[in-house]
Amino acid sequence: MMTSEPTIFERLLSGELPCAKVYEDALVFAFMDAGQLNPGHVLIATKKPYVTLMEADEESVVAMMRLARHIARAVQTVFKPEGVTLLQANLPAGWQTVPHLHMHVVPRYAGDGVELVWPRKEPGMSALLTYARQIAADPEIAGL
Amino acid sequence: MMTSEPTIFERLLSGELPCAKVYEDALVFAFMDAGQLNPGHVLIATKKPYVTLMEADEESVVAMMRLARHIARAVQTVFKPEGVTLLQANLPAGWQTVPHLHMHVVPRYAGDGVELVWPRKEPGMSALLTYARQIAADPEIAGL
Repeated sequence: MMTSEPTIFERLLSGELPCAKVYEDALVFAFMDAGQLNPGHVLIATKKPYVTLMEADEESVVAMMRLARHIARAVQTVFKPEGVTLLQANLPAGWQTVPHLHMHVVPRYAGDGVELVWPRKEPGMSALLTYARQIAADPEIAGL
Repeated sequence: MMTSEPTIFERLLSGELPCAKVYEDALVFAFMDAGQLNPGHVLIATKKPYVTLMEADEESVVAMMRLARHIARAVQTVFKPEGVTLLQANLPAGWQTVPHLHMHVVPRYAGDGVELVWPRKEPGMSALLTYARQIAADPEIAGL
């Protein structure tokens, strides 16, 4: 599904709202997140108003990641962070706040206050093999 | 820098340790995370033993993301999650636990116990423009 009304990202893309642009081409648009986790925190949005990764065309997704690599390398040079985290969130249950496909490139530091609660469960190899077989059998993977 | 001794991912790749494999080609390897956040949680690792995104070649990074899109679509079909989160962590300060480049594809549900603390700071447009100019002037971006 494409978004039906302009999100804040489309208003940035159109120039209606100001933003600190880093890069733009036919497929993607990169700019500083107004809510910086640390200095150098960049958002990369697709030009097409997809909501999620799952509905986006491959060309847009690949362009977003190719740019994320270049931006991560530039951020490493400019800000010299201790780490870099990429986050790409889809739908509210997946932490998406703006319904327009985007990826965060976040420079990171030990003790920077950005935290993750990561409750691992270990279902065991038999369950894992069942999950793997189900995913591998889907046409998305079986067709590769 | 390439890793100097085999990580657990290289031992999975070589077949020395068992894993629930989803997909493999010349560039990438996907398998079920032994520590599932939710059923269907997949890891995609590069075949080459890079540690981080920043040092990896573009071909490997693009292959990882192209596969992440296919896996997210397959996971959506098979497990019908309420959301999907991609996480790609670099260096311990960026939440990396295994020093071999990889990406998580995580099916998500409201109230699933996976949580993020996201302390946004709003430095204002002047600071954002300075950051954007610094990144855009780096050869990684200026050379695009």
